Amino acid sequence: MDEQKTTLAKVRESIETELSDFLSKQSAYLESISSDLAPVAHSLSSFLLDGGKRLRPFFAYSAFVGAGGVADKNVIRAISSLELLQACALIHDDLMDGSDTRRGKPSIHRHFETIHQREEMEGFAERYGMAAAVLLGDLALVLSDQMLNSAGLDSAQMHSVLPVHDEMRIELMAGQFLDIYEQTQKKTSVERSLTIARYKSGKYTIERPLHIGSSLAITDVKSRTSIDEAYSAYGLPLGEAFQLRDDLLGVFGDPAITGKPAGDDLREGKRTVLVAMTLDNSSPTSVARFMSLFGSSELSANDVETLREIIIESGARTRVEELIDSRTSSALEALGHGGINPVGQALLTELAALSTRRSM
Amino acid sequence: MDEQKTTLAKVRESIETELSDFLSKQSAYLESISSDLAPVAHSLSSFLLDGGKRLRPFFAYSAFVGAGGVADKNVIRAISSLELLQACALIHDDLMDGSDTRRGKPSIHRHFETIHQREEMEGFAERYGMAAAVLLGDLALVLSDQMLNSAGLDSAQMHSVLPVHDEMRIELMAGQFLDIYEQTQKKTSVERSLTIARYKSGKYTIERPLHIGSSLAITDVKSRTSIDEAYSAYGLPLGEAFQLRDDLLGVFGDPAITGKPAGDDLREGKRTVLVAMTLDNSSPTSVARFMSLFGSSELSANDVETLREIIIESGARTRVEELIDSRTSSALEALGHGGINPVGQALLTELAALSTRRSM
Repeated sequence: MDEQKTTLAKVRESIETELSDFLSKQSAYLESISSDLAPVAHSLSSFLLDGGKRLRPFFAYSAFVGAGGVADKNVIRAISSLELLQACALIHDDLMDGSDTRRGKPSIHRHFETIHQREEMEGFAERYGMAAAVLLGDLALVLSDQMLNSAGLDSAQMHSVLPVHDEMRIELMAGQFLDIYEQTQKKTSVERSLTIARYKSGKYTIERPLHIGSSLAITDVKSRTSIDEAYSAYGLPLGEAFQLRDDLLGVFGDPAITGKPAGDDLREGKRTVLVAMTLDNSSPTSVARFMSLFGSSELSANDVETLREIIIESGARTRVEELIDSRTSSALEALGHGGINPVGQALLTELAALSTRRSM
Repeated sequence: MDEQKTTLAKVRESIETELSDFLSKQSAYLESISSDLAPVAHSLSSFLLDGGKRLRPFFAYSAFVGAGGVADKNVIRAISSLELLQACALIHDDLMDGSDTRRGKPSIHRHFETIHQREEMEGFAERYGMAAAVLLGDLALVLSDQMLNSAGLDSAQMHSVLPVHDEMRIELMAGQFLDIYEQTQKKTSVERSLTIARYKSGKYTIERPLHIGSSLAITDVKSRTSIDEAYSAYGLPLGEAFQLRDDLLGVFGDPAITGKPAGDDLREGKRTVLVAMTLDNSSPTSVARFMSLFGSSELSANDVETLREIIIESGARTRVEELIDSRTSSALEALGHGGINPVGQALLTELAALSTRRSM
């Protein structure tokens, strides 16, 4: 166990180095176009380098090693690019959700809104914040591509990884749209929320990063069919477990650890599996009480407590915990198949714990 | 002249076919994930297929042919992907500018806002429209990449084109940010507006599509240095001329042709080279009168006329027309250099007229 921890710790250091080198070159380039781009370069670098669990590169790395790959600088650079894609997803997510904070700091749209106010710029601060967040997200997305494309992979690896990478990104955007669409529906649905969890987390966070790893280790697509199946059988249930844990943390999480205010998802009115289960299993009185508070930006600490109690009383919290356990068990069971080597198995076992733990 | 027209008309048909085939497959794929994605697939397809001048693929095609390339289906597919990137830019642009229309139809954020209202969905229509536009733009961006990556290019072409493509997209996002930043400044600046025109149009619309074309025809980077220099010498001034024409059309253009309400840029308060020149060359009284109307969403037809008169009286309209002429002449002169073959020269001469003509 200690030895594996050391492996991931070392991988993290390499990822941080690659991201930091890449962003420092890109920042210099942007500022060479115009010094007016300095706030863009600074805020993107700080967004990327001041935090992040690096889960997606970790999954890609572990799958690469588990498929017999021997990691070099080029591979680390390629998988580190996933963090830039994730930065795009988070920046746009915060904008769409109207979230004020990310990792305890102002979200990107709020940050640029504040710059606008502080410097008494022309026009509307809120619109400027929105536009800056749209563009910083777009920039992070194109930079992720540049980092992958310029990582130094050979032609066989490029040919092998690009289709997986492209499909992953389309699935991500599809999942994101289904998520915002869900927030507009009159009735919540456990089934629809599970589909969203499958696309946003099962596929985007875990299954596809694993396939990116295997596609870099084994460039012939037929030769990796069976290991990719095992990675899917591990990744999809684990991704759902990860999303369900995230749903619980959004309601019950400690602000000191989540970097978001307590009960932030309740204030946003985020329709999750947890909320859908609560509404399916509460009395009409409790449902009415829940809906009268849920999604109000003015929730007091007492209101948050009331909502939490309704969730707990409905049994939804317990059910979601059970679901996390059972999905995680399925995931771990899949590691015995498809020829994943022991080092890969050990890393992926550690990552399963890391991505579903209560105090994340 | 007729023969070249025929060439571009044929190229246009091939581009439409490739886009239509690609989008029909992608739409089916998205709807297989969830029928809730049907509005996404439909609106993106209609955005792409119901109009568009296809300028960027035309430039790429002409540069490819001018560098001695013989176009096949794979190359057409690769350069058609530029239209999906442009769709991302336009969808996000309209959102950031708060534009209600695009090509005479509702812009994407307004379209989804209307769906929200019509179907009496939960939450805020405006927020839903914004989120949908963010995600549709993102989706168009990742689809453009998938279309390029899966076009069937060989390894040498991929290795050659990807760095140019990546750099183009970073320049695009940089130019877009400088543009929104410019709108927040107390003072307009001809120089800053020209830098924006250089990045948004010179590089993104013309120079880089040309380099994409040459990189597909000549995969060895050293062997295309001199033709790429000629393409830059043609593309950068022509791109500025194109942007300056766009600025004039935004103020003086016929709504029936531009697909935007008359004087839309005046209502948006868009700071362009034209506006910066007007303010630099008007009396304090005219400047005050101009600024009291400029950027007000409630402009009457009379107000638009007043603003137009101040622009004309300052001499800015004439100067911008002169600038368009001189930049276009420089561009055309560059076609005699770098070994661009006669067919390429003829096509690029036609495109120079097409991209700067008054009735676009």
